[in-house]
Amino acid sequence: MPLNADLAIKNISQLVTCEPDLFDSSDDEVRPVGLIDDACLLISGGAISWVGGRKQFETSGHGASEVIDAGGLAVLPGFVDAHTHTVFAGSREREYEMRVKGAGYMEIAAAGGGINATVGAVRNASIDELVQSGSSRVGSMLRQGTTTVEIKSGYGLSVEAELKMLKAIKRVGEETCVDVVPTFLGAHEIPPEFRENRDGYIDLLIDEMIPAAGESGLAEFCDVFCEQGVFTADESRRILLRGKEYGMRPKLHADEFVESGGAGVAGEVGAISAGHLGHASREGLEAMKASGTVAVLMPGVGVGLGRPEFTDARTMIDMGLDVAVATDFNPGSSMVHSLLIVSSLACSFMKMTPAEVILAMTVGGAKAVGRQDRVGSIAPEKQADLVLVEVPDFRYVPYHLGGDIVRTVIKNGIVVFDRTQD
Amino acid sequence: MPLNADLAIKNISQLVTCEPDLFDSSDDEVRPVGLIDDACLLISGGAISWVGGRKQFETSGHGASEVIDAGGLAVLPGFVDAHTHTVFAGSREREYEMRVKGAGYMEIAAAGGGINATVGAVRNASIDELVQSGSSRVGSMLRQGTTTVEIKSGYGLSVEAELKMLKAIKRVGEETCVDVVPTFLGAHEIPPEFRENRDGYIDLLIDEMIPAAGESGLAEFCDVFCEQGVFTADESRRILLRGKEYGMRPKLHADEFVESGGAGVAGEVGAISAGHLGHASREGLEAMKASGTVAVLMPGVGVGLGRPEFTDARTMIDMGLDVAVATDFNPGSSMVHSLLIVSSLACSFMKMTPAEVILAMTVGGAKAVGRQDRVGSIAPEKQADLVLVEVPDFRYVPYHLGGDIVRTVIKNGIVVFDRTQD
Repeated sequence: MPLNADLAIKNISQLVTCEPDLFDSSDDEVRPVGLIDDACLLISGGAISWVGGRKQFETSGHGASEVIDAGGLAVLPGFVDAHTHTVFAGSREREYEMRVKGAGYMEIAAAGGGINATVGAVRNASIDELVQSGSSRVGSMLRQGTTTVEIKSGYGLSVEAELKMLKAIKRVGEETCVDVVPTFLGAHEIPPEFRENRDGYIDLLIDEMIPAAGESGLAEFCDVFCEQGVFTADESRRILLRGKEYGMRPKLHADEFVESGGAGVAGEVGAISAGHLGHASREGLEAMKASGTVAVLMPGVGVGLGRPEFTDARTMIDMGLDVAVATDFNPGSSMVHSLLIVSSLACSFMKMTPAEVILAMTVGGAKAVGRQDRVGSIAPEKQADLVLVEVPDFRYVPYHLGGDIVRTVIKNGIVVFDRTQD
Repeated sequence: MPLNADLAIKNISQLVTCEPDLFDSSDDEVRPVGLIDDACLLISGGAISWVGGRKQFETSGHGASEVIDAGGLAVLPGFVDAHTHTVFAGSREREYEMRVKGAGYMEIAAAGGGINATVGAVRNASIDELVQSGSSRVGSMLRQGTTTVEIKSGYGLSVEAELKMLKAIKRVGEETCVDVVPTFLGAHEIPPEFRENRDGYIDLLIDEMIPAAGESGLAEFCDVFCEQGVFTADESRRILLRGKEYGMRPKLHADEFVESGGAGVAGEVGAISAGHLGHASREGLEAMKASGTVAVLMPGVGVGLGRPEFTDARTMIDMGLDVAVATDFNPGSSMVHSLLIVSSLACSFMKMTPAEVILAMTVGGAKAVGRQDRVGSIAPEKQADLVLVEVPDFRYVPYHLGGDIVRTVIKNGIVVFDRTQD
């Protein structure tokens, strides 16, 4: 029976479905992103109701109340940024300057920098301040095509301040039109008052913070910064298993600077994702593969820290791991909010192909936050989260670093951003 | 006598004059960019007529017909992008994909890629097409704060097609509000029809193209791609001296991939600037310093080519060379139009400080295109080209990679771009 949809997007030059199995093509070059040329799609009740080529549409009898002509544009799924710290207070540009000038971790910490600088600012900020600045940042992300964003706590590091952050993260989701996925990251750093008593902080996490975060219902995931000098593999395992008891699925920051067993723990506890992995062992990656843990790669950190060293994406992809790319947007190591910019860094420096990076910022991101049934690709019944970009070909997305390409963003079937080209 | 200006910008949180000698501060940290906190400036007849602090303004008796309140904003000079190839046709995202996958120069050339791919597209394009796409790109640059841009020919490589490019470049300047500085780059590559007869192409340059470009009055500068496999140091010298005879001051692409004597030639012929310099010899840099040649650094190329190798800016700065940063915006090796993004790459990977990079994208760029008497800093009698950015401190500019920070751009005293924050 012909559909009478709410909205039709017609005349799409390239529809990048990110559903290669549904929309197969005989052309090996385009198959990986499930490309349909000269396409049309229909939206009904905020969801995608039909996808296909022009001819198929013309013979279908389908219609729609409203029509967008996407002539000359490619349409992609809304981007899913699967690892961010977008809610924070203050900024750390002086620390960035110190690092550029050669200062090391200890020197920066002695000058009041590092994660604990942001912890101080967040503890002093009101929840309204956190919501306002966080929502403004999420608005910037939306204009770059991001329609789903994971946001971690982890700058509170006390029961009260972590709950304040989780509440702020929830409100950012309510006050913007972006889907916000909340993660509890009480194990982001040892706070200053526990510097001489790290066991005391871990006890606080286990006995009070995780139960409070879990019972609040404000966090879907529980994350740990498993790294030399932060939390060990054993501590991470204990924290993540405790989080699981309280209904929060594990996630990790793992093996960013040195191999510290993080990837192995991720596999062992069945983490949904593990991020960074620059120094993950082969065994760790195999454990992740066995448990279906998504590898989240964040090349913005190479710029933020001024180290042109990047995770070896090819090994992971060639092993068959699911891969996401994310911004890691945070005021210390990765002040970048645009997944478009990150896509360029991932191709240029991690040697991901344009097709791989497009999948990693859509369906890969969706898998890393457990949303692949709803977002991350363009197929019937998925949420109508779409980005209309002015590019001659999907490969142009990473090719133009910081390209001014986003014309329209659609969230749940509604146009939420539209920029007419001058 | 009190001024009655056309426009006052008041309540400026940080006025970044880029005139450290005029606006000195006792604070070593801010002196390099000539910072004035809580400042005001006046514009009369398209030029800056007064600059100073709030108290100084309040006691001056000055007034203005219009007032902009820049509360919470920093004001910088309009950015000067001193090395670009912004007028071109086609795009080369498939070549980018091949390079990411590991293809070398020869393989890409064999597949129809490289500079000559764009030469083919430009020769086939009408002048109107070149003007339209070039103007659209310049519009994107303006929204990132660029108010003066150098644009090179060099994708025509015949008398007729090079003149077509120079005419298109002139029209881009007329059809946008950005100041366009035109450079003749007939010596960008050997075109395909001269592949077996490179001397023939050099004769054509010397006997016909340079005289035609010079006599047209359409180019201020004459540039050469001095590099192994393109033009030798001897050929470059000959071409640049010929350009000088026709009133075009020399510029070079020098020592980008291997040391090929380019920096030395730049010094010898008194080039106004030399770009890239990744492999320039110490002697070459000394020659540039002696002749006052500006070093133009373009870290976007590291991303475009997927090689995390960057020119050693510190050596040049510590030698006392004038330094500019530029995008090198071009469809082959540097598809980046934003000097803001380039500023991050220059700090993170070339180890320029935030203050140095701010100077390099303003007064440094202005020197590299011979406009330092008019643009590149904020001081009385300079053109009122200004960028109002939402940052807590000038260091934030490179710190936030791709930051959504430009609120307003003023060109010759007129607001030409204004974005209200959502």
